Amino acid sequence: MPRYKLTIEYDGTGLVGWQKQENGPSVQQFLEEAIEALTQERIETVGSGRTDAGVHALGQVVHFDLEKNFEEHNIRDGLNHHLKKNNISVISAEIVDGEFHARFDAKKRKYLYRILPRKSPPALRKGKVWHVYQPIDIQAMEEASKCLIGKHDFTSFRATVCQAKSPVKTLDKIEIEQKDDEIHVTVEARSFLHHMVRNIVGTLVQVGIGKWQPDDVKKALEAKDRSAAGLNAPAEGLYFVEVKY
Amino acid sequence: MPRYKLTIEYDGTGLVGWQKQENGPSVQQFLEEAIEALTQERIETVGSGRTDAGVHALGQVVHFDLEKNFEEHNIRDGLNHHLKKNNISVISAEIVDGEFHARFDAKKRKYLYRILPRKSPPALRKGKVWHVYQPIDIQAMEEASKCLIGKHDFTSFRATVCQAKSPVKTLDKIEIEQKDDEIHVTVEARSFLHHMVRNIVGTLVQVGIGKWQPDDVKKALEAKDRSAAGLNAPAEGLYFVEVKY
Repeated sequence: MPRYKLTIEYDGTGLVGWQKQENGPSVQQFLEEAIEALTQERIETVGSGRTDAGVHALGQVVHFDLEKNFEEHNIRDGLNHHLKKNNISVISAEIVDGEFHARFDAKKRKYLYRILPRKSPPALRKGKVWHVYQPIDIQAMEEASKCLIGKHDFTSFRATVCQAKSPVKTLDKIEIEQKDDEIHVTVEARSFLHHMVRNIVGTLVQVGIGKWQPDDVKKALEAKDRSAAGLNAPAEGLYFVEVKY
Repeated sequence: MPRYKLTIEYDGTGLVGWQKQENGPSVQQFLEEAIEALTQERIETVGSGRTDAGVHALGQVVHFDLEKNFEEHNIRDGLNHHLKKNNISVISAEIVDGEFHARFDAKKRKYLYRILPRKSPPALRKGKVWHVYQPIDIQAMEEASKCLIGKHDFTSFRATVCQAKSPVKTLDKIEIEQKDDEIHVTVEARSFLHHMVRNIVGTLVQVGIGKWQPDDVKKALEAKDRSAAGLNAPAEGLYFVEVKY
């Protein structure tokens, strides 16, 4: 009974997110339907983490078991054939050890947030970036971000509905860089709280557009109160980039 | 009676191209409807050049005249408001000399063609790149491209329906580079024949995937026969980047 590990890319537009839900189409549902169409086996997949409605992925990792044996490239190409209409693509498929677990074995998760600061809305990147009308001071954002690195109580950057037992997380990295006409915010941690990346980005952009001073982010963090931090940046700018094991 | 120059970005997916046509929605039609909605003036716009169905633009240039005077930023933001649903965005609006002509004054046109060579189809860049399943030898493509630079009879790379008087054009630049996981082909000329960029890219990719030798491109050019060159690369990978005046 081989275990398969997939790395998948998806466009989150119009989906309720990774996880199967009653209220709309999910990545997990389409993927499991494609697996059934290809293998005639109705199985459950395990993702490395949930993504919210509208959030994209470049490297979500998934595992599942099949009764039958398939070549790795046949799993990849066969699933891609069945996923053609779903804006989901299998980047790679590997046969892995039967003990591998996409979620519990994850050592690091990496997200990218893309911001497009300009007067004109995106036509070609619609739904793929957060369009911010105001100019953004990237140095100010960078300065403000420093206080978030390390182990903190991230209550101020956590969705009120978040179900994690503890609000304490360790942010290993936060990098802010100009990439052509966009600003890219890259964050890495073993795990994140619900909406944590989007709340961090929404808050840092308040600094970038000059509404907040860099030091206000530290105050918001220390307040341990969701209402002390800035708005939740929209889902469409967020990409789940990579999981390290 | 002020003359306005717009630089516009658009997603060509689902459109019949720049030019107004009976058979479907065009960029020009949506733009003229937006101008009418904003200014109550029903006018004709002039584009710097046509783009085919499905071809994108980062910097198409358009001119038109209005009876009334508008501030430049009000034209930009007002049109963008009315174009919200159309995947067309006005990047800039300027009041220009009444003699300025978007098409006849153009000195140089620049196109970009994006190729994604990998086994897995694009999910996030669907309709924005040409997905090529085979690996591509970029050095071979580059070597093959050199013979196209300069003044030539481009009959072999011209759509059979092309209406240009002469098949002779001067290709000023052709640049092929790896950009992350994509191959970007950038070309510049004063003007191009119908399908010329896509026919050039389609032919160079034949070399890239090893079906043709670099020298075969020179033979195809010299044959002055459309059937001697390679296939027409799909519209979705092509971007009209810039017009220089």
